Amino acid sequence: MTNCRGARLIAMDWGTSSCRAYLMGEGGVVLAQRRQPSGTMAVTRRASATATPYGLAFEQSFEEMCGGWLETQPDLPVVACGMVGSNHGWAEADYRPVPADLAAEGIVLTRVRTRAGVTVHIIPGLIANSALPDVMRGEETQILGVLTNSRRAGTLDYASECIVLLPGTHSKWVRVTGTTVNDFTTYMTGEVYAFLTDDSILSRLAVRADQPDWMAFDRGLDVVRSPAGHGGVLHTVFSARSLVITGELAPDQVEDYISGLLIGHELAAIDPAWLADEPNAILLCGDAKLNDRYRRALERLGLHVALAVPGSAPLGMWEIAQVTGLLTLVTL
Amino acid sequence: MTNCRGARLIAMDWGTSSCRAYLMGEGGVVLAQRRQPSGTMAVTRRASATATPYGLAFEQSFEEMCGGWLETQPDLPVVACGMVGSNHGWAEADYRPVPADLAAEGIVLTRVRTRAGVTVHIIPGLIANSALPDVMRGEETQILGVLTNSRRAGTLDYASECIVLLPGTHSKWVRVTGTTVNDFTTYMTGEVYAFLTDDSILSRLAVRADQPDWMAFDRGLDVVRSPAGHGGVLHTVFSARSLVITGELAPDQVEDYISGLLIGHELAAIDPAWLADEPNAILLCGDAKLNDRYRRALERLGLHVALAVPGSAPLGMWEIAQVTGLLTLVTL
Repeated sequence: MTNCRGARLIAMDWGTSSCRAYLMGEGGVVLAQRRQPSGTMAVTRRASATATPYGLAFEQSFEEMCGGWLETQPDLPVVACGMVGSNHGWAEADYRPVPADLAAEGIVLTRVRTRAGVTVHIIPGLIANSALPDVMRGEETQILGVLTNSRRAGTLDYASECIVLLPGTHSKWVRVTGTTVNDFTTYMTGEVYAFLTDDSILSRLAVRADQPDWMAFDRGLDVVRSPAGHGGVLHTVFSARSLVITGELAPDQVEDYISGLLIGHELAAIDPAWLADEPNAILLCGDAKLNDRYRRALERLGLHVALAVPGSAPLGMWEIAQVTGLLTLVTL
Repeated sequence: MTNCRGARLIAMDWGTSSCRAYLMGEGGVVLAQRRQPSGTMAVTRRASATATPYGLAFEQSFEEMCGGWLETQPDLPVVACGMVGSNHGWAEADYRPVPADLAAEGIVLTRVRTRAGVTVHIIPGLIANSALPDVMRGEETQILGVLTNSRRAGTLDYASECIVLLPGTHSKWVRVTGTTVNDFTTYMTGEVYAFLTDDSILSRLAVRADQPDWMAFDRGLDVVRSPAGHGGVLHTVFSARSLVITGELAPDQVEDYISGLLIGHELAAIDPAWLADEPNAILLCGDAKLNDRYRRALERLGLHVALAVPGSAPLGMWEIAQVTGLLTLVTL
């Protein structure tokens, strides 16, 4: 149980595989935080196993995470983002079509009221209705936090265009002007990488290495830009097996080579118009290890990369709570 | 135990996940056959679990499959193809570099002698040393059988060029003149399809259908040829989720849509020079269901498709036994 003076908001980043709760004070400062593995998938599985209604199961998880904070300050507003707002979540929130201003006053939050009388406000996701529709849920809030942090630090001005790149399980490329998302595209790079290196035939000849082998990674990048790259990812990845068989790739290079291939194919697929505009910078928002890989791959293409401040999601929620008027509720 | 008059050869198609043994007579006729799930993977796993040397474990499996036939005719020559010749198999056989005549007299078979004095002759695989090396093991023998069957049936003449397409876990496109393989390319289409539809995030919104939904399949093919296709397979497959979320794709269409996307990307990646030569035909060698899909996709591109006679691997082994002089050993 935490009692923090000056708490103004509870913010929950509630994704598929984990839930992070933040107690926040003036200016978006994090006063306390908790993390649990009770992502939406774990909550719904446990609910199914115990024949508990989903809503009740989410409520129990919420109380485990935030009950202590609310006991001290029952009137704290609560905001949440991520898959908790999906149709497998607590309550389904909208997808706002792009272009969408992430900091617009008119954003409609989806409200869920617990039996104890607490209202949880879920932030809507985004949908891009391009040739193929594309969706995000949670990343929009992370992006707003990243932009706010970058502007506070003076590394990005308010009117500038940039590309925000969120590498990961589902890598997302997002074109932004000011706080408005113009368009975005998803690549299943991380999920396919995990499959290929953990479970596919390629994993059988692979040995996990302690350190990244940058030569193997670069080799993968180079293959994509060579004539062999025209064979597409379904073809090039098979060389992570054949090159081991021919003795041209060491077993402990296989994973980094595959990483280079997949990131190379992702980069090769980006609409050239996105990069031709010479954006202010590509703002990279992955974890440290993934940032190293994408930074290296992007800089080899002559692109300018800036690293985002990590852990920006709570600040994004703070911003949304502010523009939607949630914070005024507790100004005593 | 089977006693068949006129038996001339034992041929074993011994792959990763199963082993098929054939008792063959004059002209390559199959007189009897057995199938067991004791593929190379099962054999080596069992060997590891029971601390049995690999060689002995393969020998035991071989005796279970073929011991009865050999009891009656101990002098029958034995030939085998497939992963049994890999470095995780019974004995490592070569990869012959392409161009390679599948019916060349000089093919060197790898010999393994059992304690009972039986010699097993393992057929070498093929390696294509293109920009990226590519390998096959077992398919070369299936191809020789397919070509022999097609020429016997008069649907292919001996000098003609053709493309042999073996769709499956690792789809292989093979350029052939006569019985010579000029070049080949592998696509991990089937393995990636199984992952995406069984285990990825895309599978969560999918419902398996009883019948192919050809509209959904064609839609996948069309996406690849549309501007969205430039985003590459790592991008387009994510639409199998977003289109369900937007209500534009039914859950029971997801798998056929993904199938269309992946086969579409495979076809889009084929070197145009391969198809520009207007080959005699594309000889399709998959199972019936997979053939339906590839035939449909290829014919939509205006390409001429012919179906191979299924189950041609034993005939390929018969041909190789013949050209390498194995059959003369038992001519009494």
